[in-house]
Amino acid sequence: MKKLINGAEDVLKDALDGIAAAHSDLNVDKKNRIIYRATPKKGKVALISGGGSGHEPLHGGFVGFGMLDAACCGEVFTSPTPDQMQEATKVVDSGAGVLHIVKNYTGDVMNFEMAGELASAEAGVKVATIVTNDDVAVEDSTWTAGRRGVGVTVLLEKIVGAAAEEGRDLAAITALANKVNDGGRSMGVALTSCTVPAAGKPTFDLPEDMMEVGVGIHGEPGRTRVPLASAAEIAKQLVDPILADLDFTKGPAIVMLNGLGGSPLIELYVMYAEVSKLLEKAGVKIARNLVGSYITSLDMAGCSVTVLKADDETLKLWDAPVNTGGLRWGV
Amino acid sequence: MKKLINGAEDVLKDALDGIAAAHSDLNVDKKNRIIYRATPKKGKVALISGGGSGHEPLHGGFVGFGMLDAACCGEVFTSPTPDQMQEATKVVDSGAGVLHIVKNYTGDVMNFEMAGELASAEAGVKVATIVTNDDVAVEDSTWTAGRRGVGVTVLLEKIVGAAAEEGRDLAAITALANKVNDGGRSMGVALTSCTVPAAGKPTFDLPEDMMEVGVGIHGEPGRTRVPLASAAEIAKQLVDPILADLDFTKGPAIVMLNGLGGSPLIELYVMYAEVSKLLEKAGVKIARNLVGSYITSLDMAGCSVTVLKADDETLKLWDAPVNTGGLRWGV
Repeated sequence: MKKLINGAEDVLKDALDGIAAAHSDLNVDKKNRIIYRATPKKGKVALISGGGSGHEPLHGGFVGFGMLDAACCGEVFTSPTPDQMQEATKVVDSGAGVLHIVKNYTGDVMNFEMAGELASAEAGVKVATIVTNDDVAVEDSTWTAGRRGVGVTVLLEKIVGAAAEEGRDLAAITALANKVNDGGRSMGVALTSCTVPAAGKPTFDLPEDMMEVGVGIHGEPGRTRVPLASAAEIAKQLVDPILADLDFTKGPAIVMLNGLGGSPLIELYVMYAEVSKLLEKAGVKIARNLVGSYITSLDMAGCSVTVLKADDETLKLWDAPVNTGGLRWGV
Repeated sequence: MKKLINGAEDVLKDALDGIAAAHSDLNVDKKNRIIYRATPKKGKVALISGGGSGHEPLHGGFVGFGMLDAACCGEVFTSPTPDQMQEATKVVDSGAGVLHIVKNYTGDVMNFEMAGELASAEAGVKVATIVTNDDVAVEDSTWTAGRRGVGVTVLLEKIVGAAAEEGRDLAAITALANKVNDGGRSMGVALTSCTVPAAGKPTFDLPEDMMEVGVGIHGEPGRTRVPLASAAEIAKQLVDPILADLDFTKGPAIVMLNGLGGSPLIELYVMYAEVSKLLEKAGVKIARNLVGSYITSLDMAGCSVTVLKADDETLKLWDAPVNTGGLRWGV
């Protein structure tokens, strides 16, 4: 295992030290492993997300103006605990309520639910929840009942974050979050496995001439294991299932071409060329795009595609200023 | 070789298609393989950089407001030709002159020099040149007479780009570029080799338990090949030679912790924690920082550290608005 780490057990702790050292606009609570804005905005609905680490910049890199108020960091590929989420909920609530943004993995869903109940009971915080489930690859998985939450989570945190900055109330924010999740679909491909530090070896074996289509962000099995193909063919294997699942030809779309951690930017642009060509050929009007590594799976080589239905409202929120470590524009 | 590409010979062409599709504010001249601003600013000194591809987002990702006016893209790890550079120089010049920002590699230096002479002779363009040479690892290398140009190029493009937006003249811009280059030092480490698509196999062999300290961004040999070490020990092996080469304790510094393409963000933050600790212990006051993959070496796992002397002038220029694919703030 070749990684820039100290001990396998130190990865999260050390990464939090690095985030604290790099970003003076963030508070890092090392005991509770939560990252939150140093200068919270009073009176706005607060947004919290979180999950296992290993998907950076998601979620800690999206804490800041225009996106999240706090992120709860679990150990690598391990849900944070209800305690962490409850603490984050209390820290960021300023009376307008808190939205929990949860990727659909069994542990995350259960723990956020418990944290919401505890925060409501103990401190009277109004808590709402959105569970993202945009991955069309598999209906159920080793880690999930229902579809997995992946790339749409990034787009949702941006769009709903902008709405929260505008001062919308918790009911409106929650309705918008549901709209975004309902209109988003994703699919990923792995060329290599990731290696979890604590395991010290690749999560799965993938021969030199094969790839895993529909892979999950923890290396969960996808739909099919097929021979390594060209970028054009890979694009087709990602785009076709997305378009088969939802009609994206009415109105504009936001498209993300996301790297899984071990694939360099030059390859992501090669993929975006193919993906955007296929989508446009299918009648999808790409109004905005994002090319880069935003929701990763440690050092996995590969990428994912997310397509999101947009409209005037969501495009305006997309374009609104954002100022985080992982996404920044208009400020 | 596992890559998200079509043919090995198509990588640059396809990546340029992706960049054109993703960034409507850039013009991509596919014939000349240059990327330039769609809306040039009249009357300002124009900044051009370029070099072999495979280091993205450098340089194409730094074209835009507050940084470069154009980037010339060579094939992977291959210098662009004088023709490309000459064409870029003519396209962006609006009378105030052009600065060529050249990383110190023999082919790049020679070709940019020829292009400058041609553009001056043919079109009367005033051309100045800055050759960056910040890599303390080796004095000469397989690709270089003198030190290699690496991470400081990113910081220089940002700082000098802001000065050009302010309207400074070519002499002032060139003097500033020299100041930045003189005050910057870098050192990198590879955990794995990169794989050049046309070669189809790793550029060098690096056993599972070894790392290459002082590696170049094309996989050129470094200073030493030593057993794989902890993040803390790696940080020391990068920071010590930098501090031994230049005194950074007078005044503030800008520090970049850069990923080489195959290392995920969580590891870069682990490294930044160690690097920032060492620098502060040595009396370096870190005023600004950048953590992410900005000058890469295809899919190489590893990182580099760049430390740059700053002052009120350079910090102000650093903080000025920038709006490019690879760096964006304040706009």
